[in-house]
Amino acid sequence: MALIVQKFGGTSVGNPERIKNVARRVARYRAQGDQVVVVVSAMSGVTDGLIKLAREIMPLPTEREMDMLLATGEQTTIALTAMALHALDLAAVSLTGSQAGILTDDVHTKAKIQDIDPKEIHSLLDAGNVVIVAGFQGRTADGRITTLGRGGSDLTAIALAAAIKADLCQIYTDVDGVYTADPRIVPGARKLPEISYDEMLELASLGAKVMQSRSVEFAKKFGVVFEVRSSLNDNPGTIVKEETQNMEDVVIRGVSLDKNQAKITLVAVPDRPGVAARVFKAIGEAAINVDMIVQNISHGSGQPATDLSFTVDKPDLLKTRKVIDALRGEIGYEEVIADENIGKLSIVGVGMRSHSGVAAKMFETLASEGVNIGMISTSEIKISVVIDLARGEAAMRAVHAAFLG
Amino acid sequence: MALIVQKFGGTSVGNPERIKNVARRVARYRAQGDQVVVVVSAMSGVTDGLIKLAREIMPLPTEREMDMLLATGEQTTIALTAMALHALDLAAVSLTGSQAGILTDDVHTKAKIQDIDPKEIHSLLDAGNVVIVAGFQGRTADGRITTLGRGGSDLTAIALAAAIKADLCQIYTDVDGVYTADPRIVPGARKLPEISYDEMLELASLGAKVMQSRSVEFAKKFGVVFEVRSSLNDNPGTIVKEETQNMEDVVIRGVSLDKNQAKITLVAVPDRPGVAARVFKAIGEAAINVDMIVQNISHGSGQPATDLSFTVDKPDLLKTRKVIDALRGEIGYEEVIADENIGKLSIVGVGMRSHSGVAAKMFETLASEGVNIGMISTSEIKISVVIDLARGEAAMRAVHAAFLG
Repeated sequence: MALIVQKFGGTSVGNPERIKNVARRVARYRAQGDQVVVVVSAMSGVTDGLIKLAREIMPLPTEREMDMLLATGEQTTIALTAMALHALDLAAVSLTGSQAGILTDDVHTKAKIQDIDPKEIHSLLDAGNVVIVAGFQGRTADGRITTLGRGGSDLTAIALAAAIKADLCQIYTDVDGVYTADPRIVPGARKLPEISYDEMLELASLGAKVMQSRSVEFAKKFGVVFEVRSSLNDNPGTIVKEETQNMEDVVIRGVSLDKNQAKITLVAVPDRPGVAARVFKAIGEAAINVDMIVQNISHGSGQPATDLSFTVDKPDLLKTRKVIDALRGEIGYEEVIADENIGKLSIVGVGMRSHSGVAAKMFETLASEGVNIGMISTSEIKISVVIDLARGEAAMRAVHAAFLG
Repeated sequence: MALIVQKFGGTSVGNPERIKNVARRVARYRAQGDQVVVVVSAMSGVTDGLIKLAREIMPLPTEREMDMLLATGEQTTIALTAMALHALDLAAVSLTGSQAGILTDDVHTKAKIQDIDPKEIHSLLDAGNVVIVAGFQGRTADGRITTLGRGGSDLTAIALAAAIKADLCQIYTDVDGVYTADPRIVPGARKLPEISYDEMLELASLGAKVMQSRSVEFAKKFGVVFEVRSSLNDNPGTIVKEETQNMEDVVIRGVSLDKNQAKITLVAVPDRPGVAARVFKAIGEAAINVDMIVQNISHGSGQPATDLSFTVDKPDLLKTRKVIDALRGEIGYEEVIADENIGKLSIVGVGMRSHSGVAAKMFETLASEGVNIGMISTSEIKISVVIDLARGEAAMRAVHAAFLG
């Protein structure tokens, strides 16, 4: 008998039939005596539908109200999931994030979990219930509804697993686990039996789409071992845990392509101290995450000026433009170029630390494919390049073949 | 400068364009210095869609989870309405029923408002906000989400108007006011400039569809004068208030047809004391409202037995059947007949008290139309008959012509 947190994403609860499948799976664990906390996302398509509705009202909806709106998505799913369990004669109670005791800061649409009070969950579990918690949402100390941003339901599951000291945290998704690359793009991709938090982090932050990096960071911080597995079958998934010795034997764990970034270039920014600080302070204050930053050497004959490029999540592009436009008078750049047609291609592996020539091999592979590199960024265990979005998938296949083929 | 509660129903907020219309109307009142609390329903179709979804999961969904599910409908609308006001540069904050301090009992799907703590609303109004409150919902003392049942948003508006001591309560709907009959069925129907609480109560409880009776009862109890008016134009609506002297001059204020009732007959119930009490106690305990009850004289040659008929709201039919089936062993009736194909036709008017021959005129009219009367029920200011649903609308037109034509 174990205490298990099971998280089901939007596709796994995409329609009533799939919600019933989730209930049947939960029932199997319940039948062997396990206590189960289920975390669910909004049914697939629902969140996007709500965002579309909001945009019909105003182009840049206010974030407090966006949270009020989006929180309905998961609330719908928890109620339906509880009903599906009742239909199997299992005791089950649904809780919104707020009711489940998930307290966050007040950064609407991107709130951070500050504390979880698991009292209500424990008391419902003790009374024999399956407890179904709305992922992705919480509340502020003064009672406002917040959402945790992209991938927030995974975060809810992992944070809950830590808070209730669960024996197991299973992240159910529409893939069998973590692959060496997205199998929908790279046919030869293979499932990994295990992966380290750090590799998973790089893959997550690089758009491998399996999980959002905050969730993995949280799991790493609190030592929550979790399994990414499919809600469509009973295959074992990929275990995500601390790095072990034999993981370094493999040079590259995986290849990822992030299509969700946009690149912004400030052309002819005065090259003087404090300019970059001013730009990224303003962007940070707007709670926009910047990923890559590249600044070239100074050029021009008069005032020294430089081009400053950086990438942000595509949904933040409009907000970023507003911030940058507001700084124009103060900073005095020449123009702003925004490019949504980029892809960020990355290779990841803890084995890079002990193997040389990895970057050269990646760049050679891209050159032989005729793919131009726009930006480069590296860490101890990953190399990322920004390339033309249209060439992204072909480049990904070539790099996968070179390292993992 | 007045403090106004404005309630907009599902049709008035049925799509983004209509929500923007609501915002523009609110803005006009705000521009003349009024403080406005807006109560909104779920967008039309949304609640039914959620109910359908729940039924795909299980035929008789649990009511606590039903409330969790349905509450998302209004929550969606409040967020969108707040955004629409923001788009007009008005300060606005949305509140769920729970956040607005609406405390209810714990009878899920039909909760009663027990108390309203208007602190949060007052503080947001004082800070210059339009406050948008989710109709139809509240929370129990221990934090569970409840809904108020059919027409609950009107109740929210009127209860809030009482709690915050509003100067005015406007119920916006898709009709211009209260009519002598539903103009969609009776072309000659006329709008009433005013109507008494009691007449409105009879019309509401009889399915005139303009408002639910609990809301009118609440308004009567707390002396909340309200106006029923259209969200599609600026025509004055119908003022609902205490009866005045000159109201009795009119014999019949209106004719209504309730298509939302179902009739249940227990055939050959043993005719002994306590049987009816047992039946309606069980139904009452299941929180099902019974409307008309008819018991005929005893018949049969052996044990004295009778037929017991009553009507309930159609959505309660399945639940009522369960209650009745469970009583079979104890009571020993012969069979149960359920009939959903009925309509309840009623005439209402405080003038009935001072005019005679009203019932006879109604029955004659129906007879001359060849409409058979199944059940009859009367009060001081109304006469209701149950007839074949298929003949309902024609019968309504005939009765309207006879009294008001």
